[in-house]
Amino acid sequence: MSDYSKGGFTLPGESGYEDLTLKMAEKWGADVIRDSDGTVLSDDIVKAGYGIYSTICIIRDHNEWAKQNPDKLQQSFLMTQPVMAESDTLEISLMKDFFAEQFVVNDSEDSLKYWEVYDRTTEQKVDGSVWSYDKDSGNVKVKGVTPFHSYTVSFLAYRIWEEISMYNHVTNNWQKEHLMPIDPRTKEAQDYMYGWMENWCKEHPDTTVVRFTSMFYNFVWIWGSSEDNRSLYSDWGSYDFTVSPKALSDFEKEYGYALTAEDFIHQGKLHVTHMPATKKQLDYMEFTNKFVVEFGKKLVELVHQYGKKAYVFYDDSWVGVEPYSSHFEEFGFDGLIKCVFSGYEARLCAGAKVETHELRLHPYLFPVGLGGAPTFTEGGNPTLEAKKYWNSIRRALLRQPVDRIGLGGYLHLVEPYPDFCDYIELVGKEFRKIKSMHADGDVYTLPCKVAVLHSWGKLRSWTLSGHFHETYMHDLIHINEALSGLPVDVKFINFEDVKAGALADFNIVINAGRAGSAWSGGDAWKDADVVCALQKWVYEGGVFIGAGEPSAVDGYQSYFRMADVLGIDEDTGAKVCHGRWQYDVDSETRDRIFPDEATVPARSFLYLTDGKAAVLADENGIPTATVNAFGKGKGIYLAGFEISNANTRMLLNMMLYGLGMDLDQNYLTDNANAECAYYPVSGKMVVINNSGETITTNVKTEKGRKTFTLEGFETQIVDA
Amino acid sequence: MSDYSKGGFTLPGESGYEDLTLKMAEKWGADVIRDSDGTVLSDDIVKAGYGIYSTICIIRDHNEWAKQNPDKLQQSFLMTQPVMAESDTLEISLMKDFFAEQFVVNDSEDSLKYWEVYDRTTEQKVDGSVWSYDKDSGNVKVKGVTPFHSYTVSFLAYRIWEEISMYNHVTNNWQKEHLMPIDPRTKEAQDYMYGWMENWCKEHPDTTVVRFTSMFYNFVWIWGSSEDNRSLYSDWGSYDFTVSPKALSDFEKEYGYALTAEDFIHQGKLHVTHMPATKKQLDYMEFTNKFVVEFGKKLVELVHQYGKKAYVFYDDSWVGVEPYSSHFEEFGFDGLIKCVFSGYEARLCAGAKVETHELRLHPYLFPVGLGGAPTFTEGGNPTLEAKKYWNSIRRALLRQPVDRIGLGGYLHLVEPYPDFCDYIELVGKEFRKIKSMHADGDVYTLPCKVAVLHSWGKLRSWTLSGHFHETYMHDLIHINEALSGLPVDVKFINFEDVKAGALADFNIVINAGRAGSAWSGGDAWKDADVVCALQKWVYEGGVFIGAGEPSAVDGYQSYFRMADVLGIDEDTGAKVCHGRWQYDVDSETRDRIFPDEATVPARSFLYLTDGKAAVLADENGIPTATVNAFGKGKGIYLAGFEISNANTRMLLNMMLYGLGMDLDQNYLTDNANAECAYYPVSGKMVVINNSGETITTNVKTEKGRKTFTLEGFETQIVDA
Repeated sequence: MSDYSKGGFTLPGESGYEDLTLKMAEKWGADVIRDSDGTVLSDDIVKAGYGIYSTICIIRDHNEWAKQNPDKLQQSFLMTQPVMAESDTLEISLMKDFFAEQFVVNDSEDSLKYWEVYDRTTEQKVDGSVWSYDKDSGNVKVKGVTPFHSYTVSFLAYRIWEEISMYNHVTNNWQKEHLMPIDPRTKEAQDYMYGWMENWCKEHPDTTVVRFTSMFYNFVWIWGSSEDNRSLYSDWGSYDFTVSPKALSDFEKEYGYALTAEDFIHQGKLHVTHMPATKKQLDYMEFTNKFVVEFGKKLVELVHQYGKKAYVFYDDSWVGVEPYSSHFEEFGFDGLIKCVFSGYEARLCAGAKVETHELRLHPYLFPVGLGGAPTFTEGGNPTLEAKKYWNSIRRALLRQPVDRIGLGGYLHLVEPYPDFCDYIELVGKEFRKIKSMHADGDVYTLPCKVAVLHSWGKLRSWTLSGHFHETYMHDLIHINEALSGLPVDVKFINFEDVKAGALADFNIVINAGRAGSAWSGGDAWKDADVVCALQKWVYEGGVFIGAGEPSAVDGYQSYFRMADVLGIDEDTGAKVCHGRWQYDVDSETRDRIFPDEATVPARSFLYLTDGKAAVLADENGIPTATVNAFGKGKGIYLAGFEISNANTRMLLNMMLYGLGMDLDQNYLTDNANAECAYYPVSGKMVVINNSGETITTNVKTEKGRKTFTLEGFETQIVDA
Repeated sequence: MSDYSKGGFTLPGESGYEDLTLKMAEKWGADVIRDSDGTVLSDDIVKAGYGIYSTICIIRDHNEWAKQNPDKLQQSFLMTQPVMAESDTLEISLMKDFFAEQFVVNDSEDSLKYWEVYDRTTEQKVDGSVWSYDKDSGNVKVKGVTPFHSYTVSFLAYRIWEEISMYNHVTNNWQKEHLMPIDPRTKEAQDYMYGWMENWCKEHPDTTVVRFTSMFYNFVWIWGSSEDNRSLYSDWGSYDFTVSPKALSDFEKEYGYALTAEDFIHQGKLHVTHMPATKKQLDYMEFTNKFVVEFGKKLVELVHQYGKKAYVFYDDSWVGVEPYSSHFEEFGFDGLIKCVFSGYEARLCAGAKVETHELRLHPYLFPVGLGGAPTFTEGGNPTLEAKKYWNSIRRALLRQPVDRIGLGGYLHLVEPYPDFCDYIELVGKEFRKIKSMHADGDVYTLPCKVAVLHSWGKLRSWTLSGHFHETYMHDLIHINEALSGLPVDVKFINFEDVKAGALADFNIVINAGRAGSAWSGGDAWKDADVVCALQKWVYEGGVFIGAGEPSAVDGYQSYFRMADVLGIDEDTGAKVCHGRWQYDVDSETRDRIFPDEATVPARSFLYLTDGKAAVLADENGIPTATVNAFGKGKGIYLAGFEISNANTRMLLNMMLYGLGMDLDQNYLTDNANAECAYYPVSGKMVVINNSGETITTNVKTEKGRKTFTLEGFETQIVDA
């Protein structure tokens, strides 16, 4: 491997393209060939001496059994849109709002007892005696309602179309049979799935790795009846698709209290992962997580019995499979595969406690990519896409390595794109070099021990809830993405950790998000012990960085509970008559910390608490970036954070400045578009260009400054 | 008065400029000459046959008595900025944050019992046994505090400098003695003030009208110790400057419960008029209002006994003198004088239940005006200022007349500005013509019965809390200003009115403001009866217009409680994973309703609830103006509202559209910069140009369309 041309690469094989498969395997240095969902590799490939990954999704592709057991399909609570009563009776159509190909009402007796009708004008539950379900019309009829109040019905529905199958069908206009998701909650379903798995293992002797397309429960994706609002709800971290009368009954036995429809429906809001969880929600998640691990583990053990490894692909049906859950290791997986668009996803994978970490790079070998944009088709530029994605991943891998990379999709699509094939060959080599440098010894890291503080803590390390393009409206995903490639230590902690003394391990805490969100923390900030611990920690030298509405909660003297530390607060309206401190922008400090192209978004209603914070940036006369001395530490505030090369460096500079360190540290570039990683044991230094333009940068090293000129997205590795 | 050249005009006379005074009185048609605070008119003026207004401010200008009775100065609760404890003891300087020339700590025994120390980290009151006040240092010392918690002290302070005197001194660098505000709360003070007033009446036989510069208590204006934040708090509607140990004691006797410092301090927020009042606050306001009326009435009666009239100037010490309070008529005032920048202030004055309504126009005859900008001095353009202010007032007076207008300040300043003198002559004539048309018969009004719905209702009709330039950040003041000159009926109602059936009198309800504010309504929207009454009313044909965050409150299925009616809602974060309806802008309806230059500001987080609302405007893919059919009525939403000629017409068009009326009504102009008022009895039609440019407009009348060309700010009066 001295030329870094082979190994750690998973190639998607394609039947009918055996020669191409073997040719590209050679070019890209693949050691493993995988099938894709719904494809089968031919013997020519399977017998060619490569490791073989076979993909299975255990809960779908069993339509025959599913049809015989329609009561063992997966379910979900749904709530109708509110309907206003015009008289004292009301009729509400259950399925009017929902996609009829995805859901069917579960009107069995054990389901009906969980249904609820709510007066949403008063938020009071309507007594069960005054409403009834009419099977013929599919409507709930309610008597004795209050005219001009609005009502909803919450009910259980079976899901008759597994969502990934549904999405692929609809996106690609497939006409195949709709795959149904079966629920492993019953013993019958478990027996069936276990038997199927065992049979599968017997029938696939050449498979070396069974790649589980996650476990059982898809992230929640509720489709609506209207094409103008097809995706009614989509949350990659939500547990709503795991519910059933049996699950509820089992929960009640185990936890000693019953959950209701409203505990899931939550006024139609459901439980967005971006919001802090309730105690009941956490109980239910723990209950489900344990169940997924318990049965998942049996399947993994079965795979092991057949001499195969078991990897899990962390997407699609990932609920209950969170790699940072305390139960994850119990599965016994041999590997974790993560599809990655972003650096933070690479770190999510790299940091999981599992033997093998593998990244599925983008672009996938599909004609079109995100949002239907062309990739491997007329108008596409897959090489440029690959460069941009690799650009995000590479800097994360320089901080923490993974073991493998790979591609997905249909291999034959790459044939007309020799540039792409060459670039992937280069990526493979860069990946192997980076991996080997880590193998020689740890990467050099600045003494910045960063804790990202939010409601979920470790459980949702790096990710929020899904991919970047689904969560771009949250400051924290931008910050996580910036952190993923910075030469600092990063961990994720929650508010219980703070109270348990976790701050002692860190010198920087970041709290970023909208008020009330899981990322800002919401009601967790009502806990005086949390506030006190952080005030003490900053006072004694810590650096608290808040972005957006950090530590915001109603009911206190300040809206930001860390306002004393930050020196800035937000007026929710009650202080609109209070004076505002005049200030001058501290342009000297700003010019040190802000690279030329750094920006901070504007925000309304912010004000300086005591006029002592230094203002580094402002918009419309309102500060947007401040630094406040607090004891030996500092409170740093950013009105928001958007990922860019300049802003990433600004964030690093703020951390160094907060800690009282020189900003001109060894192994930092002096061009914000470039980054450097240094491996002291091997003496290797990697300098990367995170922009598409040719740039020049100096890097300060222990042996003096070195100058680099890098082409767009280029990687240079030298002896420091 | 057939040439409209005389009457209803109050001139500020100036001693030393007797000839000028009499000359300008003639030119402007004055029938009354007034003095100004601190000036005395000479006999030449007083004996010239004009009515004479004399200005008194009953609570200041009694420094001799005040010095003998320092315990009878007015007081206020103040709260120190939070101070973090670094150990288990803490020392907090009371006056560190405050302007020492305005406040002196009241450390008397009956004051000290109201002081409070709070742990602001826990929001718990610290037991009185662990803290003490050290008179020498002016500090409160607290023992046994929790390290790294933050503490405040709330205390009573005397106010030793009446705020208007203070402002005038500081602004004009006066070196005169500081006037102290005496508190009429004690019998001794009342006796003194009554005696002084009686003596004054005896000594001023020529005075025909005593102009009270309000009554006793100034709007709240707390100054800070730092020049970088001099105005710590300024609220024109707040009652904080009325408090004292005696007031608190009297309150407890009357209401049967005691108020605490925290009831006033409210975590340092105080009670901003822009926020909904608490029950205790309302009780205290009622208590104080009654007191002000009770003693104020005695002074008015005294004035009457001396054959003089009593007018009240509604500014400065106006607290407890609200013209829309149910107690206002009890004062027995003969006139209400309002200083006006804006149309809504003219309407506030015009609608009050009092015999004589008088406006004090701007600009005042001062060298500099708002914010220190030049007026009657180098660089000033007083004529243009006068035109712009009159432009705002005129349209309001076309809707509802007042009896008198006038100017204030130093008359000699107008001498170098003959243009200004000519323009005021013109204003006087226009004012008298408008007044005479109203006298002939009511102005024509469209069948739009508008209720502005907010927490204060009638009490705060037209104004929010002070002048436009102090409240410009609130959508509602822009809406009130637009309404002040529109040909519609306008009343102000609160949520209790809604429940008591007030909606029956209206076909349009407007609710506009930031979530939680008094203008949006805050917790009042938790009342299902309010929501139900409005839903019913719209369903049966009403038009609900919401702007900003109308009806917003946490805890329900929707954030806007009128979301079903409006078809639009705001996501507070809990619905960030919920799909958004696609929409097309309904450009046909938009083009009908929006004049060319109409604008609606952008707002984040809005989303359509069921995709049925017509979107009239959007920004960044988020709707900013929508119309939603709801039964026979409509819900209309505006993300915000900014006053302009075009937006004023847009608002009128929305009302007409909402009511299903033709937008091309008689006596409307087809140019949004022009407005028209029609007086059916006299057959007079007034067309005004609200812009500074020459414009042409058509007006549809019963006799066909008429075309007008108007110069900038011109008024034309014709027979319709």
